[in-house]
Amino acid sequence: MTVACVAVDWGTSNRRAFRIAPDGTVIARFADDRGVLNVDDFAGEVAAMQRWAAGAPLLLAGSIGSNRGWIEAPYVTAPAGIADVAAAIIRPQPGVGIVPGVAVRNPACPAVMRGEEVQLFGALALGAASDGLFCHPGTHSKWITARNDRITGFTSVMTGDLLAALTARSILSDLLALPADDDMAFGDGVDTMLAGGDVTAELFGVRARVLTGHLPPAAASSRISGLLIGADIIAGLRGKPDDRITLVGSPGLCRRFALALARAGRSCASIDGEAAFLAGVRAILRAT
Amino acid sequence: MTVACVAVDWGTSNRRAFRIAPDGTVIARFADDRGVLNVDDFAGEVAAMQRWAAGAPLLLAGSIGSNRGWIEAPYVTAPAGIADVAAAIIRPQPGVGIVPGVAVRNPACPAVMRGEEVQLFGALALGAASDGLFCHPGTHSKWITARNDRITGFTSVMTGDLLAALTARSILSDLLALPADDDMAFGDGVDTMLAGGDVTAELFGVRARVLTGHLPPAAASSRISGLLIGADIIAGLRGKPDDRITLVGSPGLCRRFALALARAGRSCASIDGEAAFLAGVRAILRAT
Repeated sequence: MTVACVAVDWGTSNRRAFRIAPDGTVIARFADDRGVLNVDDFAGEVAAMQRWAAGAPLLLAGSIGSNRGWIEAPYVTAPAGIADVAAAIIRPQPGVGIVPGVAVRNPACPAVMRGEEVQLFGALALGAASDGLFCHPGTHSKWITARNDRITGFTSVMTGDLLAALTARSILSDLLALPADDDMAFGDGVDTMLAGGDVTAELFGVRARVLTGHLPPAAASSRISGLLIGADIIAGLRGKPDDRITLVGSPGLCRRFALALARAGRSCASIDGEAAFLAGVRAILRAT
Repeated sequence: MTVACVAVDWGTSNRRAFRIAPDGTVIARFADDRGVLNVDDFAGEVAAMQRWAAGAPLLLAGSIGSNRGWIEAPYVTAPAGIADVAAAIIRPQPGVGIVPGVAVRNPACPAVMRGEEVQLFGALALGAASDGLFCHPGTHSKWITARNDRITGFTSVMTGDLLAALTARSILSDLLALPADDDMAFGDGVDTMLAGGDVTAELFGVRARVLTGHLPPAAASSRISGLLIGADIIAGLRGKPDDRITLVGSPGLCRRFALALARAGRSCASIDGEAAFLAGVRAILRAT
């Protein structure tokens, strides 16, 4: 089957690549953990991706275009719509495009994103309300305010990156090696934050709870997840008492954020992050 | 010269060992980064320490007695004075004593410490007010409330551990590789937290500030330090509007915490952590 393009959602921790047919359907896909923090030879990785694309053009989005990635694609300044982003795609070599990120250049609260703009425009193309608050949970969660199909502002919370760093090397690493599947302990962690908890104190408190017999070790990683996601939604919702909320991400993460939002008395809709990314790629290709 | 004992302050990240003469003076010392998170063969490390002690008894304090260390020395429950701690020293083999930690067994806010109790009793022996709030900044900062020379309660904040984890592996690691020597950026970070900042959002915001040109890369690690220490003092001071504050730690860390406390309108005294540890060892040996 003809391949129209290969699109890669190349993030900080992971990447997902899709062979896309001219009608927009996905012919093949793969996902791995070769996010930009885990890659040294970017040129080699891009060349391998081109071989996988078998001559079709590559469209790269996410951290791959950051100063921690392959080649830097300068940010588009918010407010920004899809036409602004599509017009700023850089083409470092024939057949390769890198989607720029979006930046808020307010000195009081500057913010940057890469990759979520594709998902956001995809969510809008999939029918999400064009005005509202979009939460993209992940390594660096984004809370994006959209008005009239444009990104007007956003904030970022380093929830997943912090969790990965704590898991890799900290006094909590042994507890974080256990699965986080205890919704009650998760909810307690969220509630602790909503009640005004200090997150860097409560994180160590998880170990204290386990050592004093107040928390089973098997519940610890769920409580930690609840504390970090609780801190995430507090930051994301600050100053947004009324916006409609749409979660854009993996079903597992969206479920956890929806649970946390419900604890804060907020309802939300969810859109699968991969579907949003693919819809965003199609919308950007149409706008190019 | 006769060696009365070798005392080891064996923490999570680092350890410091002292050969102590019968009159309490230090004959020799060494320090390295073989804290419990960096050691696998504890028995071998303890045997090496015994060789360095050349027959004198070993007194080990800190994380070495935790479930992440060599042999677990059960916590003494707060409120606890020096006699309670001295009486609970365990002796797993001839010539080796492990100082127990102290635990708060309140289900609402359980807390555990190991090592800081020795410094605290040392600070009291060195003349610190017997009632007050003692801040031990570090890997897991402790804010200890003392009343009548006893530890009545405390809270812990995982400031240094979090910084080490972010430095080792996160999107901030390149910025954290630069020295943190910019007091103005540090103070701005503290002020951001004192003004109600969300620490996990502000941490990512440091990268956004650098990428949008609002913060020089060389100032980033100072701002991160200010955010984390700001979050630390907010947690430590919560509910303590009036206590006298004594910092117990390395001169460099005490200086930063004193700067942060001043931003919060609080004054403090400082006691060198090593001097406090040595005074605590002498006080415990007298109480044994």
